[in-house]
Amino acid sequence: MTYTRIDVSLAKGAYPVFCGSGLLARGDIWKPFVGTGQVAVISNNRVLSLHGDGMTQQVKAKTVILPDGEEHKNFKTLEIALDELAAMEMRRDGTVIALGGGVIGDTAGFAAASYMRGVRLLHMPTTLLAQVDAAIGGKTGVNRPHGKNMVGAFYQPVAVVCDTSTLATLPSREYVAGLAEIVKYALLGDAPFFVWLEDNVVALLAQEPTAVRHVVETSVRAKAVIVAADEHEIGDLRVLLNLGHTFAHGIENVAGYGAWLHGEAVAVGMVAAARLSEKMCGFVAADTARIIALLRRLQLPYAFPNIDTDTLLCAMRADKKHAANKLHFVVMEAVGRARTIEIDDETPVRQTIEEMR
Amino acid sequence: MTYTRIDVSLAKGAYPVFCGSGLLARGDIWKPFVGTGQVAVISNNRVLSLHGDGMTQQVKAKTVILPDGEEHKNFKTLEIALDELAAMEMRRDGTVIALGGGVIGDTAGFAAASYMRGVRLLHMPTTLLAQVDAAIGGKTGVNRPHGKNMVGAFYQPVAVVCDTSTLATLPSREYVAGLAEIVKYALLGDAPFFVWLEDNVVALLAQEPTAVRHVVETSVRAKAVIVAADEHEIGDLRVLLNLGHTFAHGIENVAGYGAWLHGEAVAVGMVAAARLSEKMCGFVAADTARIIALLRRLQLPYAFPNIDTDTLLCAMRADKKHAANKLHFVVMEAVGRARTIEIDDETPVRQTIEEMR
Repeated sequence: MTYTRIDVSLAKGAYPVFCGSGLLARGDIWKPFVGTGQVAVISNNRVLSLHGDGMTQQVKAKTVILPDGEEHKNFKTLEIALDELAAMEMRRDGTVIALGGGVIGDTAGFAAASYMRGVRLLHMPTTLLAQVDAAIGGKTGVNRPHGKNMVGAFYQPVAVVCDTSTLATLPSREYVAGLAEIVKYALLGDAPFFVWLEDNVVALLAQEPTAVRHVVETSVRAKAVIVAADEHEIGDLRVLLNLGHTFAHGIENVAGYGAWLHGEAVAVGMVAAARLSEKMCGFVAADTARIIALLRRLQLPYAFPNIDTDTLLCAMRADKKHAANKLHFVVMEAVGRARTIEIDDETPVRQTIEEMR
Repeated sequence: MTYTRIDVSLAKGAYPVFCGSGLLARGDIWKPFVGTGQVAVISNNRVLSLHGDGMTQQVKAKTVILPDGEEHKNFKTLEIALDELAAMEMRRDGTVIALGGGVIGDTAGFAAASYMRGVRLLHMPTTLLAQVDAAIGGKTGVNRPHGKNMVGAFYQPVAVVCDTSTLATLPSREYVAGLAEIVKYALLGDAPFFVWLEDNVVALLAQEPTAVRHVVETSVRAKAVIVAADEHEIGDLRVLLNLGHTFAHGIENVAGYGAWLHGEAVAVGMVAAARLSEKMCGFVAADTARIIALLRRLQLPYAFPNIDTDTLLCAMRADKKHAANKLHFVVMEAVGRARTIEIDDETPVRQTIEEMR
């Protein structure tokens, strides 16, 4: 059983992302990263029943069960996690293992970041979205009434274990939503990968293991490079990961957490970014058509839902990525070449939304 | 009007601590550290009415008022602060100014650390305890039912402004409690400063400005050196700052937050540390007597309250500074020379408590 190790290199030192099939049961690979103190596996019931057995046999740990779903990514759930860590009397030498999707990773990650001002954190993402995005790069946090991920920490894990065999049990809709973020990496910086995706839609939808591992590893590598260059999203580089996300967060805010899967909203957001790029920086319409065609074949949405334009714009303005009163967007000059722009006049954004119904 | 600048040098870069009288009104000194985005001054009503005017005139800011007192250093107050930052639509380019004592600094500091995963933070401590300890070194956090400062972040400010003129309005009990932490710096690393304190009790109790500035600056320098060497309390050095604190946290936990001022509990804890040091590493009894004499002249407590020994020991064991099942203590070999020890057998700790009633 082979696996790949991809390092995320940061100022303070690198941490590894292990990718491969069956890694949760391979304690020999990830146990060296567990500390000497107590260990808590933070997960939810569904993930534990599917993937917990092989993993929890590797290490003596207390299991902390959180409620499942984006609507529970809040302070109340964070407090459950923190109180469980306190109840087991975890010390600063303890380790939190976040086993699950993005909601578990973000919540358990923030708990690990803030419990006693920080204990060791291992991410074991079990969804495609978490493996290619959420678990890499140290963003943790919870939602607030005012917005998604409004409160959190940049807190890097000591290691990430991407066991691609866990993806087989994902609901099809969730797996497909994860593919949207993979398309994003192609669009923002890797044109040959976009072609590869166009050529391998059938293998991806069939979850052919070699294809799945290829997209996970390619995405992890892409994210690792960006995070290494701009850990705290201070420069422009990490912002590129938000391609399609201003529109996506608008959709998610208006529709309410959970109505749309994040990847689904990102898919629509990328089409919107492409159309906006046509207006702003000469992106070729034929490439927008290619993006739409790929998303459609991947069974992803590519048009806005029936939301009032002003309501959507208002939600987009509230998105935390904007400084001052300007809307910030990631646009593409071509497939594989993205950059950020500031927009004073909302007209092209409004046009984009109205064209895409 | 002169002031002193003391730099806290960290891996990521240094930040300045400005010490002097009347600095809150000296925007020319601290405004360069405020960012370009929105500014929130987080404080409480008492501090604002005493010190807010001169300071808030320096910068366009929204004022966020938190409830006063250690019993409010919790998630509920943190959420008030976070929601106010969200309501004013602060972006990542915003700045939080924490104006007040340790409770404000810790709560507002954690809010700044976690709001959008971190905005700029300036500390403007207005109590002696906060100026010499809490505001320096990046510890932020709130209390939980399971213990003090159980949840928080290491989050360094961009600058700290210690305006010693604010100390004149402190309730005498609070000012005196702050002196305990100053004695601590002398005990853990600066024997000549201990002698200086013995020689200047009258000037300190009279809040003679030169004496106050000398103790604030000496303490800030001592803490800056320790924090620079061990930012995240990974080595043994920063732990030395906990001299007397294992006993102190035990007293505070048993008595309930707010019954004892932190500095008062630390005073008793330092006497206990001295007595324990007599048993464990040859600390001279005559020096324990000097410590007691100094604390008594400073009007600080130096004996345990009427708490059951087992209850106190249990609370001390729960203190977060302990790893595994061993009690960790900071002991002194002499005045000005401290180190950490692990204790397996609690007998000398128990004896110490029982001797000190």
